[in-house]
Amino acid sequence: MSTPIEHDPRAARLAMRRGDWTGETLYHAPGYVQANLVILPQSEAYEFLLFCQRNEKTCPILEVTDTGDPHPKYSAPGADLRTDLPKYCVYRYGNLAEERASIEDLWQNDFVAFLIGSGMTFDEALRRAGVLPYQGRPHWIVKTNLRTVPAGRFQGPVIATMRWMTPQQAIIATQVTARFYKNHGAPIHVGDPDIIGTDLQNPIAGGPVPELPKDVTPVFWACGVTPQWAALERKIPLMITHAPRHAFITDLLADQICLP
Amino acid sequence: MSTPIEHDPRAARLAMRRGDWTGETLYHAPGYVQANLVILPQSEAYEFLLFCQRNEKTCPILEVTDTGDPHPKYSAPGADLRTDLPKYCVYRYGNLAEERASIEDLWQNDFVAFLIGSGMTFDEALRRAGVLPYQGRPHWIVKTNLRTVPAGRFQGPVIATMRWMTPQQAIIATQVTARFYKNHGAPIHVGDPDIIGTDLQNPIAGGPVPELPKDVTPVFWACGVTPQWAALERKIPLMITHAPRHAFITDLLADQICLP
Repeated sequence: MSTPIEHDPRAARLAMRRGDWTGETLYHAPGYVQANLVILPQSEAYEFLLFCQRNEKTCPILEVTDTGDPHPKYSAPGADLRTDLPKYCVYRYGNLAEERASIEDLWQNDFVAFLIGSGMTFDEALRRAGVLPYQGRPHWIVKTNLRTVPAGRFQGPVIATMRWMTPQQAIIATQVTARFYKNHGAPIHVGDPDIIGTDLQNPIAGGPVPELPKDVTPVFWACGVTPQWAALERKIPLMITHAPRHAFITDLLADQICLP
Repeated sequence: MSTPIEHDPRAARLAMRRGDWTGETLYHAPGYVQANLVILPQSEAYEFLLFCQRNEKTCPILEVTDTGDPHPKYSAPGADLRTDLPKYCVYRYGNLAEERASIEDLWQNDFVAFLIGSGMTFDEALRRAGVLPYQGRPHWIVKTNLRTVPAGRFQGPVIATMRWMTPQQAIIATQVTARFYKNHGAPIHVGDPDIIGTDLQNPIAGGPVPELPKDVTPVFWACGVTPQWAALERKIPLMITHAPRHAFITDLLADQICLP
């Protein structure tokens, strides 16, 4: 499934910079930490950082760039967050205005970029542990009725990824993912989706949810779309994020920043 | 060693509020997460929070209060950070001005309180695993030549706690503490103190360091004094912290917020 370029995160990012890689990063670049991206003006940065701190499970911060600096010098030296993701979403006043492959011309001197750990990081670890997507379906992204802890004007629902597993796989997956504490860690829920008020009628991503097979236990992880959602509800004039499943590939080794 | 009051963090805090408990918290209130305290004006809060994010191992944030609010409502509902610690240090322009048992009259509307995980939290877990202080000595606090990652005007050396152990205990202690990722986690160094430029001549706390016995391996953990040190070097007009080894006792169960 993986190509030589995927074992070199720098090469992967350069391919994105050149426009040669515009597709998803899900299941690509195995072993490297993937990050969600949120770019906000400095005036929002303190409250947003506080929001992430208060909701660490959904918003584990990997890096915050210096104001105006698009270079994530700690997690990916040499990278440029204006060009090195395959696809971006540009939101104006909380509405998706456009998707695009570069944001060079939109960058502002007061921008702060937040890199937030993504659960896509542990898919490779699950695979190594024999927990493969149920019937090839990766996961759904769904809204829950759990609430984040507010910080200033940032608040909103907890967004979750839902993976279908056998009960035995659910136990293994809990053990495996707990170690990846910078990438959402252990599940937030296992079993009946109603208990956390999951909206199965309108998943945010992953397509329609079929009826639950009898041998399946749904397992839910906090999802990095949560901070995006909170930021969108603030209706900030201009905010930029990665496009879903088109994440930033860091130089960080997933097995190095996780716990034993 | 523990008294009934120590199994009820709320009762322990009330005893401090009344002035009945003015001594150390080291080795007290076993099982509850202890926190270092740093209080700064809002104007410093973003850069300090960013500093903590960039130096998570030394500065694991447990809670940041809302501006002007002295109540840590998430980690200890009902507590008051102006009275519920046994002893405070008041720093003016980077110099220790006084130690006192309450800071009620010093509290300002623009103050933000940071609770930062303390390694004192895992001493109980080490004890349960049979790793007792070498010859009854708890630990030293020492300066190293490792540097923190700067954030704005905050920067400084990594401060460490040094514990003496047998090599076998060092291995056990690494395994045990790695789980306590919100309380400095695994060691930052093991063995020769020179490698990290440890200043053994002038330990910050713990008294003079005798010659290293042959059967001892020094083990070093990141210490919550690090962010204090960085804040002191900023020479902020008014900054308040806990006094060393007189920490804030939260309601958080150490075994609940650590990893499996």
